[in-house]
Formats: sequence, structure tokens, C-alpha cells
Amino acid sequence: MLNQLFSKLEEYYEEMVSIRRFMHQHPELSFQEYNTAQFIKDFYEKLGITVKGNIGGNGVVARISGKLPGKTVALRADFDALPIQDEKDVPYKSLVPGVMHACGHDGHTATLLVLAKVLNELKDALEGNYVFIHQHAEEYAPGGAITMIEDGCLEGVDVIFGTHLWASEPTGTIQYRTGPIMAAADRFEIVIQGKGGHGAQPHKTKDAIVTASQLVINLQQIVSRKVNPVESAVVTVGSFTAENAFNVIADKAKLIGTVRTFNDDVRQFIEVEIEKIIKGTCYLSDSTYKYLFERGYPAVVNHAKETEFLIASAKDVPEVIHIEESELQMGGEDFSYYLKEKPGTFFFTGARPPGAETNYPHHHPKFDIDEKAMLIAAKTLGTAAIKIHSAE
Amino acid sequence: MLNQLFSKLEEYYEEMVSIRRFMHQHPELSFQEYNTAQFIKDFYEKLGITVKGNIGGNGVVARISGKLPGKTVALRADFDALPIQDEKDVPYKSLVPGVMHACGHDGHTATLLVLAKVLNELKDALEGNYVFIHQHAEEYAPGGAITMIEDGCLEGVDVIFGTHLWASEPTGTIQYRTGPIMAAADRFEIVIQGKGGHGAQPHKTKDAIVTASQLVINLQQIVSRKVNPVESAVVTVGSFTAENAFNVIADKAKLIGTVRTFNDDVRQFIEVEIEKIIKGTCYLSDSTYKYLFERGYPAVVNHAKETEFLIASAKDVPEVIHIEESELQMGGEDFSYYLKEKPGTFFFTGARPPGAETNYPHHHPKFDIDEKAMLIAAKTLGTAAIKIHSAE
Amino acid sequence: MLNQLFSKLEEYYEEMVSIRRFMHQHPELSFQEYNTAQFIKDFYEKLGITVKGNIGGNGVVARISGKLPGKTVALRADFDALPIQDEKDVPYKSLVPGVMHACGHDGHTATLLVLAKVLNELKDALEGNYVFIHQHAEEYAPGGAITMIEDGCLEGVDVIFGTHLWASEPTGTIQYRTGPIMAAADRFEIVIQGKGGHGAQPHKTKDAIVTASQLVINLQQIVSRKVNPVESAVVTVGSFTAENAFNVIADKAKLIGTVRTFNDDVRQFIEVEIEKIIKGTCYLSDSTYKYLFERGYPAVVNHAKETEFLIASAKDVPEVIHIEESELQMGGEDFSYYLKEKPGTFFFTGARPPGAETNYPHHHPKFDIDEKAMLIAAKTLGTAAIKIHSAE
Amino acid sequence: MLNQLFSKLEEYYEEMVSIRRFMHQHPELSFQEYNTAQFIKDFYEKLGITVKGNIGGNGVVARISGKLPGKTVALRADFDALPIQDEKDVPYKSLVPGVMHACGHDGHTATLLVLAKVLNELKDALEGNYVFIHQHAEEYAPGGAITMIEDGCLEGVDVIFGTHLWASEPTGTIQYRTGPIMAAADRFEIVIQGKGGHGAQPHKTKDAIVTASQLVINLQQIVSRKVNPVESAVVTVGSFTAENAFNVIADKAKLIGTVRTFNDDVRQFIEVEIEKIIKGTCYLSDSTYKYLFERGYPAVVNHAKETEFLIASAKDVPEVIHIEESELQMGGEDFSYYLKEKPGTFFFTGARPPGAETNYPHHHPKFDIDEKAMLIAAKTLGTAAIKIHSAE
Repeated sequence: MLNQLFSKLEEYYEEMVSIRRFMHQHPELSFQEYNTAQFIKDFYEKLGITVKGNIGGNGVVARISGKLPGKTVALRADFDALPIQDEKDVPYKSLVPGVMHACGHDGHTATLLVLAKVLNELKDALEGNYVFIHQHAEEYAPGGAITMIEDGCLEGVDVIFGTHLWASEPTGTIQYRTGPIMAAADRFEIVIQGKGGHGAQPHKTKDAIVTASQLVINLQQIVSRKVNPVESAVVTVGSFTAENAFNVIADKAKLIGTVRTFNDDVRQFIEVEIEKIIKGTCYLSDSTYKYLFERGYPAVVNHAKETEFLIASAKDVPEVIHIEESELQMGGEDFSYYLKEKPGTFFFTGARPPGAETNYPHHHPKFDIDEKAMLIAAKTLGTAAIKIHSAE
Repeated sequence: MLNQLFSKLEEYYEEMVSIRRFMHQHPELSFQEYNTAQFIKDFYEKLGITVKGNIGGNGVVARISGKLPGKTVALRADFDALPIQDEKDVPYKSLVPGVMHACGHDGHTATLLVLAKVLNELKDALEGNYVFIHQHAEEYAPGGAITMIEDGCLEGVDVIFGTHLWASEPTGTIQYRTGPIMAAADRFEIVIQGKGGHGAQPHKTKDAIVTASQLVINLQQIVSRKVNPVESAVVTVGSFTAENAFNVIADKAKLIGTVRTFNDDVRQFIEVEIEKIIKGTCYLSDSTYKYLFERGYPAVVNHAKETEFLIASAKDVPEVIHIEESELQMGGEDFSYYLKEKPGTFFFTGARPPGAETNYPHHHPKFDIDEKAMLIAAKTLGTAAIKIHSAE
Repeated sequence: MLNQLFSKLEEYYEEMVSIRRFMHQHPELSFQEYNTAQFIKDFYEKLGITVKGNIGGNGVVARISGKLPGKTVALRADFDALPIQDEKDVPYKSLVPGVMHACGHDGHTATLLVLAKVLNELKDALEGNYVFIHQHAEEYAPGGAITMIEDGCLEGVDVIFGTHLWASEPTGTIQYRTGPIMAAADRFEIVIQGKGGHGAQPHKTKDAIVTASQLVINLQQIVSRKVNPVESAVVTVGSFTAENAFNVIADKAKLIGTVRTFNDDVRQFIEVEIEKIIKGTCYLSDSTYKYLFERGYPAVVNHAKETEFLIASAKDVPEVIHIEESELQMGGEDFSYYLKEKPGTFFFTGARPPGAETNYPHHHPKFDIDEKAMLIAAKTLGTAAIKIHSAE
Repeated sequence: MLNQLFSKLEEYYEEMVSIRRFMHQHPELSFQEYNTAQFIKDFYEKLGITVKGNIGGNGVVARISGKLPGKTVALRADFDALPIQDEKDVPYKSLVPGVMHACGHDGHTATLLVLAKVLNELKDALEGNYVFIHQHAEEYAPGGAITMIEDGCLEGVDVIFGTHLWASEPTGTIQYRTGPIMAAADRFEIVIQGKGGHGAQPHKTKDAIVTASQLVINLQQIVSRKVNPVESAVVTVGSFTAENAFNVIADKAKLIGTVRTFNDDVRQFIEVEIEKIIKGTCYLSDSTYKYLFERGYPAVVNHAKETEFLIASAKDVPEVIHIEESELQMGGEDFSYYLKEKPGTFFFTGARPPGAETNYPHHHPKFDIDEKAMLIAAKTLGTAAIKIHSAE
């Protein structure tokens, strides 16, 4: 069965590339992916596969049933693009000014569409059911996953897999991780309200720049002293604004920043701890504050059994040369929501463009992938989807 | 002689008020006081008094000689206005949108013009020579004093007096001080250049916000630990800008601030010490910096003998009720330059508007003076100018 | 074979307990374990097993050879005690005032001695060779492992295993971890030399307390900003001394602290980074410093294959109920040196005293273990030692 | 009359020196000056002058009345010594190990005794009454002044003068100052109570060293931001103790320090502000604290009229070459209490040992004075005391 899967995927590899390139030329921003959603829906309809659009927004979900009884396995690909100007010099360069598939979601979609086509062709020999979740709006919180789940995309699903094409690793690598793999990425905003005045009369003021500077320093202790050192956490103040004339004392300062964590307790702790530190610091200068903590996606936490199963599946794919544990990734992903509902795992498929001297990171204007990696992703996901029914 | 001086000044008091109000309605910004300079020159020319314009810019200098031999005494008044919208509801409100005599320089000029007129009428009975220095551009560094001095306004001068109408003190008060009375007011600008990056990867960056925040805290120690506690000094960071998205680490932060001192050694020390603290703080994060220290006016340092003489003179003015030592004033004045060249003193003439419930500070959109204070200023300056010839 | 191993170990369990209790009553401090070493040597000699004492100090090494060819596997137990007063109320309480086996090394030794006795009895049926490394001085850097290795204790060894009885986990638990499991534990000492003086004249001094306080704060940024957030690291200042009269300014301050890391690069980075931060901080106040960084044991880094093999072996032990990944442990162990020379793994054997309401931590005056855990440790180590010859 | 005063003082100068040297050889610590008090009392009794001992402790007060009516003027000298080992190599070196007149109080007493003797001889020609206040325990808070005042030493007094022989200024100098001249010198003690623990587990602790270090830094802002920059103030932490092993986290840290101010409002403000800063800083780490603020002597605040009168008197003394304004002195003096009750002034009489290459500061083991300065002090005090009756 795997042989058939692999040879059919290879057969349709060119189609996979052309789908990816078409999408690359026609990117759409998060929550505005109307044409892309239609394109996906049309693909399934042309093949006579059951498909529904407008799932929780622009989401599209297709379903196939094998002849034989088995589990219901979901596979997910996201399809939104980014507000970045494509600066690559390639024939399939983005045709939309200021919008670009700079994260590989085009490749995710092409991978999943062609895999669905192949599984559909093999369905008479397959066990179980297959759900193809095409998710909109991964790049922009609150993301598309929540509403798609609310709208039923996980109904009846027993297990879910997803992958990210990963341009930092060479093609042929699969990176897995049990437990947390990608961080919760939250945002905070703090306004310190002191009391302004003449720069020569500090005693009549509450210097907001001094208070906010102290706050920045005090916040360092969350990571250095208050979080268990074996946990990973980041608290970053990315923006500090208190713009005034040289001879005044600032009445107000605004700090904006991000928190990254891999553990819900640590996340919750830091949200509370930041306010405690603001409060104590403001007390020093009798200042007041506003504090806003906006939760982004929670951490992506892989399930152990499904991750081990994915590793075993990857070993069956001949093009997979290295299978290794991923480092913790500080970026966020709303795949986390699926894993809060269902067992499953999210992994990285190495996709570094071959021969590329400079390796452009995700979200870079010159970002690109090795398209061969799509085939490896499809084979790995397909193997897992087919073999899961006989896993203990 | 003083009797004559006083009664003539009283006689011309209404003219003084109308000059002041005319100027109040027609304010001009520093270095652009063309009409005001012409107005002053015309005043003298109409009276047949020797006068020269374009002294070191828009400066105007008039000279009178008494019949009898004596010292040459200079009296100075400044005449520029501020970029502030007049919000008072009075008939003599500024007619120029966004420009206003919000510091009393109109009153200084009216005082000096009428005093000159009176001294001119009395000149046959007077000893010595009288130089009326009408200075442009006091509000805006580098100020008008330097170039007027370079252009000879102090030539032959033995002693100089100046006053500031002072709205925080009641009319009838004269405030003097030996030694420093007004601060040196300098400006600094610091740019911290770190290395930006993703908010989740602090170890790959040099966080400019953390470095600049530390710098703000470290700068506090100049005043708290490094300046002699019996000296007065202020180091204020008035502006802190590092505006970025929430999920980045800042590559750059800009601090702008002011230093106030009363002593040249302390001023020089702080200029150097700030750089030392920047250097040490940047060393902590391998960051680099740019540091600019722009000297404003030096401290106004009154001469002891002339200050004592001024106190004695003020005692002769019947309307002067309180003569008291001034506190150190943290604001700056380019009268300092005259006092570096010639002996003299600068004092405050109380001018709080009578019955005013709220007392608007200098540079406030509703700032006003008690015009009676002009008469007191004229009498005090006139007394000092007439009596100085017989002082030891 | 495992059956024989297990039943013989069970048969000698009481001997194991009595050995442990005898040692518990007669603890000896690190580098002074003369009687304990002799006791161990006598045990082997009585059994006719080849044994050598004075290996790299008080170390003792015994060797057994199976009849059949195979690998040479080393098992290690440490045997030194701590300068702590035993406060337990048990018949086997320490008889030496102020010295106590408060970390379970007595249990380690009893486990290994009895395991050696059993393997010796089974040797005609065993493959390979067995090296029993009884290590002195684990509790006190530089530890006994380095010199024992220099003295040849690992000669011919193919693989090494060691365990720590772990009172925080219930009996029946085995905790493993691939890669780093226990931290490098280093010590630093910093003396800030400022310039003292009268408490009322800060400007004539270089305040060492202010400088050292800034240093403490600045050091926080190593962990919060400079170490990769997915790495674990701790920088703690445990001691700050600058004792003076109230009305002076301190000329000197002394900081002592510890650094914990799991990765040699991070360890090396922090050692250098601390000095950079000292240097920058001292620059702020023109102070000088002395900096001493004393390396303790490096991190214990388990080898992947041997760890997986150990997990498999533990599954063969019926009393082992939970096999789980260990958290990173911030404490140090000189087992790290063996693992730098030879493949192997170090694991934790749960040994929480049963029914104990309060669970006293290691190094506590009331610390104790569940002696049953020794049997589990012996079975697990024995299983690994016997089965390793057939592992790939 | 002044001529007689001066010539008699000159006549008895050798006696003055021998009194001073006798006292220098027989110093007594604060509150233990029994022999010194007796010595003073005996001196007056031998001359038949009314004298009373045990005034508010070891204090001694003598009174003389002139024949003519006039004011009652008090003159004060202190007579206690310091716990310092005399390291001078002079014939009159201290005979008491570890006790020394290292501040010139012996000279003050000799000056006042001989001046009293002379005024007594002149009393038939004098106006008014003379009170000679010999105060014990100036060096050790709460000092002797409070209880002597409570015990009536100022009864009937109209005005009081006192001087300090001042080894930093050359003989022939008199330093005066209107308003504050010497600081209030207070002491504080802060204990930060965090929660200790293992150096590798900061998240389970409340690190008292980090909290106390932050506190030291935060306290800097009292002077740099919160006190009016034209006021002088010092906040110094002189002692920081948290001594522990390297691998623990400190549970407690103790700070001891001093506050110097010249103004009661500022003093009161700082006492309160320190607690606010402790509170806010402890809030950051959930720590608790103890705070003790012990007031030392208040600032010595001279009265304006009496200071001007003293200046005029000093001009009558031929040996007085320089009369200059004193800097603010950060040291304390309990002469402050007399000036809270009565008008008067406290001044410095230059007493730098002639030809001394090195000038040892007050409280130094090699401190000494130029004894000639005693004569100048006596003449100046005597002139003031005699002329005060005719002052307006």
C-alpha cells in the first residue's frame, strides 16, 4: 500500500509544484483568502470529493472514507499569506504587491491537496476515514483554528497530524518533539502614568521615564529568578516610547512586548507576575498604570504516543534521511488548538532550498522552499494516515 | 536726584504701559524681531538719543552721557517672544497667532525705554555714561548676548545691571543673590545602537531598550553619588524613544535630556561623567553609542559687590517692600555672558498680577504680569545707575 | 538468567540492608573515607573477588569476569557522607557527631556490593566482564571520579551505568533522561574594590555597595537576555558582604555565587560574560575588581543509545512501575567525568520512604530512604549489566 | 574694653595651652567625662565664680554678671573625647589607651575657661550677664545638649554663640554661614526578609540579595529625583550584609546607612520616602522588611542677625585675616538644639597646624590643632559677648 502511495505521489509531483506556484503567485492575507478557499474547494469538487467551504470563516474541509473500517484521521494545512513584498527573482513570484507566501503555506496546501487526490484514488483499499482540514488565517491571531473547530472540523476525528515545511533544515530531515514544540506567543502593553513637569524640577514630578526604565530592568527577574530554570520563557519589551522635548520630565511612557512560554502554568504565572512588578515599581514613584495582556496562540504540545508513531512512519519514507528531535521553537502556531481537542502531533519537514548560499528565514522577503520537500511531507503524512489504523 | 527720577518715571508710567501693550500685541520670535528692533530704534531716534541697530544681529544699543564724569553703566533688556499661543482674554492680547510675550520681555523693554527717556531728560545733572542694551533672542540658544558682546555692546562699560520681571513673587519684592542665581541649562542626546532581532530570541540580539533603561537608572548616580551634595545639579532624561512592533527586540533607542548646574566645574564634570556611564553601560551589552552634549547658557553668576550695591539701591525705592535672597533658579539666562565680561548683577522684580487667583507661570499661555512692577524695576535700575558713580 | 539474578538479590536483601545500616552508623566525610574503603575492600576479599584499593585516593575497584566473552561493563557507587548532624530517630542513626549519610551513598554502596556478590556467584553463566567502581568523595569538588579515572578505573570499560537513590520519587519509579540530566555546578567570587570615605561625602568616594548592587542587578540579564531561552541556566549571588559602620561609604564588597548549566558552551559563555558585566559595571564607578570562577563538576550528559537500553532493561524489573523522563536536575554529580570517557547513562531510582508524611530532601538532617529501593536499583543495574552484551 | 580683653587673653595664653594639653593627656569618652567635669568645676571654684555641675548629666555651667545692665549671653564649649588611639608623637599625647581628643574639644574648653577668667576680671566694667556652658557628650547621640537645656542651662539666656576649631582651614580664618551650616545626621537600618533556598532553584525562593540590591539602586532616586535640587541631601547605604555559602539563595539582607539633610522638611520627607521605596521594592519579590530610622542631631541652623553680628565682631579681632562664608558641612553637631531655643550662631575658627605638610582631618588618630587658634576663638567669642549689649 505504501508503495502505491509513494509512486502515485511521485507521479503527481509536477501538479503539486504547479499548484504551489499558482498559489505563490496569488497570495491572500489572513481572513481575506476568498479566492484561495474557492480554488481549494474547486479542486475537491472536480475530483468528486465531499467538501465544504466557509468552515469557521474561509476554512475548507474535505472528507474521504476508505472501504474498510478504521479510525478517522485529520490532516491539516494552512493557506494564508503575509503582508510582505516578494523580493525573489523567480518566475512564480507573487503577483500581488505587498503580499507574499513567505512562510510556506502554499506548499502545505499543495502537499495536502495532492495527498488527498492520491488517497481518494486508493480509497477502496484503505481503512478508516480521512479529513483534510484546509485552515485559513494561521498568521494572524486569533487565527482560523478556533472557529473551524467550533464549526465542527474535528467532529469524529480520532487523531490529527500536521507539518510545517521548515526552510532552516535540509530537505530529508524530519524534526519531531514530544510535549511542547512551539511556544505560546502573547503580547502585552503597559502605560506608566507619572506626572510631567519641567526638566529642572524633578521633585515636583513623577518621572515616567525613570519608572518605566526601572520596570524594564525589574521585568528581567521574571526569567532570571522567578521561572523554574528548567522551563523556557522569554519576556521582551520590544517598544518603549516617551517622546518629549529635552527640557521636560515625561508624564507618560508606553511599553509593548511579548511573552513566550511552553507551559500553561508558566504562562499564567508570568501574566500575573508582570502586573505585580508593574505595581511595585509604580509604587516607588506614586505612579499609576494600565496593563493589557493579550493571549496569542497557546503552546503547541504534541502527544507522546502519536509522536512516536509519527517517527516510526517517517522511517518508512525513503527520502527521509535524518529524524531528529526538534529544539523548542519560540514561534507560535494555532495548530495548538487542535491538539487541545484531539491526540496528534505537529512536526517539521526540512525544506532548505538546495545550493542556496544564503538561507532566508521564514517571513523574509526572499524566503523560498525546496519544493521536493512537499513530496516528503506528503509521503510522511500519507504513511502516518494509512498506518494509524493498525497502531496500538 | 532720585526724587526727580522717581517722579518723572511716575509721570511716564502710562507711556510705559502703552509701549508694553503694543509690544504684547506684536510679538516676534527669537532671531526674527525685525519690527521690534525698529520700534526700539525709532523710539530713541525720536528723542535724539544716539542709537545703533543691528548689533550682533537684531540688537539695539543706545548711549547717553551725563554732564559730569563717572562710570559707564549698562542696563539690559531683552525683547524676543515665544512660540506660544496667547490664551489670555485681555484687550492687549497677542495679534500674532502662535506667538506670545509669555515671559515678560515686553515689560523689560518698556521699562528700559522709559528709563532711558527719563535719564536723557536728567542728563545735565548726571555723572557718567549710560548704555541701554536692548538684546534680541534671549529665549533661544545660542542667544543674542554673545554676538552683541562680540559686536562691542560692552565697550567701555564698567558695570552692568539687569532684571527679570518675576510673576511668581508679589509686586514690591526684589530678589537678589550673590554668586550663582540661574542655572546653566545644557542639552544632551544619546543614541544606543544595539542589535535588533526577534522578540523570542534575545540571545541573538543586543537589546537596546534594556541597555537604555539601565542607562537611565545609572545616570541617577551622577546626582546621588558623584556630585558634591552641597552643589545643585539636575540630570533629566526627558525623552526615550524606541518604537517597534511588540514581537521584536529593539536595535536602537534614543534618549534626550537636560543638565542643570550652577558651577562650571560641576557642569564640565557631568558632561564627561555622562559619557563614562554610557560607555560602561554599553559595554555590558556590547552596544555602541552616539553622544552629543550641547551647551546652553552658562550659569548666571552675580558679583558680590555689585549685588550688595543693588540691595542698597533697592532700599531707596519706596515701593520695594521685601528685599530677599532668591533661591537658586534652575532656568537659564544669557545674561550670564555679560557677567563673565563685566561686574554686575541680575535680579528679580516681583510682578505677580494682583488679585490673580491662579498664578500662571512664565511660558504659560495665560501668563501675564502686574504692570506696576515695571515702574519698580525702572526705579530700582535707575537708582542703581545714578548712585553707582559714588559707590566705592 | 534474570530470574536467577532477581531471586539471589532478594535472598541477600537483608544483608544489603544491614550493610547499608552499618555504613549509615559509620559515615565518613569526603576524602577521609578510610574505614569505609577498607570495609568495601574486605567485603570483596572475603568473597575472593579481585579488588584494589587506593585507586585515585580512597577509591576501590573490583572486577569479575564471566565465562563467556562479552563487553566490559562498569557499575559505579559512591560512598562518602556529609558534614550534617543526623537528626533522625532510628536505631541505625549516625554514630559520628556532625557527619551523616544524608544523600543515600550508603544505599548505593550496599546495592553495588550485594549485586557484585550475586554476579560473582553467577559468573560461570555470564558473558563479559564486570567492573565495580566504588568511588570516594562525590560530595566535595574536585571529587573522586577524576583521579580514579586517571588511575585507570575505566581501563577496558565499554559502557558504564550508575544510579542515584532518589527520595523525592516513590519507590518503583525509574527516571531517565537522554542528554543532559544534571547540571554543571560552578562557583564564583567577586570582590569590588571602590574607594571608601565618609557617608556624607559620596563625591569623594567610589561607593562599593552601589557598584556591587548594580552588578547583582546586571547579572540577571545573563539568564534573561543572553542565554538561549531553550537552554537552562542559573546565575545566583548567594552572599553579599560589605560590613561597615552606618556613616561610612564602603570601599569593598564581596559577592559569592553559583552558576548552573547543562551545556559546555553556555557554561563557558557565562564564565566570560560575568567578567564582562563586572568590567562594565566597575567602569561606571572607576572601581576595580577581582574575579574567580571555580569550575565544579561538569553536567552529567547521558548517551542516547545507553539510555534507551537502560529503559528497556528497567522494563524487565517487575518492581519498576513507572519509567519516566526526569526533569533537568540543577544539582551536580561527578558521574559526568565517566560519561565524558565512556558511553553510559545515569538514572534515578525512586526511594521515597513509604508512608512518610513529610518527605525530607537530600542533604536534610532527617533525610532517609526506602531501603526497598536498593533492591530495585540492584535489579535494574544487574539487568542492564547482563543484557548489554547482546544489545546492538 | 576690647583692648583689655585682648591683652588679658594674650597674657593668659600659656595657661590656655597648658589647660588644653592637660585635657589632651586625660581624655574621657562621651557620658563618662567625670574627671573632666570636676576639673572644669574646680577651675571656676578656685576663681570664686558661681558654677554648677551635673547639669543634665556631666554638664557644668558657670555664670558671671557684669556691673551694668545688659543681655544674657551664653557661650558654649564641649569637652568629651573619642574612642580613637592617639598616634601623634607629641609630649602632650593622650595617656589613655584608645581614647583621644581627636576633634578639638580640649581646645574649646581651654578657650572658654580662660575667656571666663578674663571676663570675670573685667566684670565691673561689663554690661549684662555671661553664661559659660560646658557641655559633655557632643560626640555621641543623643548628646548632652538636650538634657542640659532641659536642666535649665539656657534659662534667661538672650543669645548664644559657639565655635568649632577647624583644622581644615588656616589659622586666622573665621567661617560663618546664615541658615543651615551643619547637617542633620540620621541613621537607618533595613532588614529585608525574603525566603532562602538552594542556589539552583531561584523560583522557589525570594532572593533577598537581589531585593536588597534593587533597594540600594532605588534609594538613589531620592536625591536624584525626589528632593528639590537646590536642597542638599545625602542618602548612603554604608553596610550591606548577607553572608552565606555560595550555593544558597539568601533569605535575609541587612542594610545600614545614614541620611544627611539641612532642612527639617527634607529630613522628614526622606524618612518617609525610604520606607515607601522599601515597600515598593519588597512588593516586587513578595518580601517583608523591618525599617528603623534613628534621628541624630538636627541641622545646625544659624540665625541671620546674630550671624551678621558675629561677622562684625570678628572684624574687630586683629588676628582674623579671612572672614568667609562656610560651605555647608555634612557633619552633625548638637549645638543645633541651643539654636532651636535661642537666637545665636555657630562658626568655625580656622586651626590648621602651621607648617603641617599633611593635614589630618578631624577624628584622625594624628589629628592636632594650631593652639594659636584658641586665642583667636577666645577673642572672637569675647568680642561678640561684650558688644552684643549695644547691638540693635
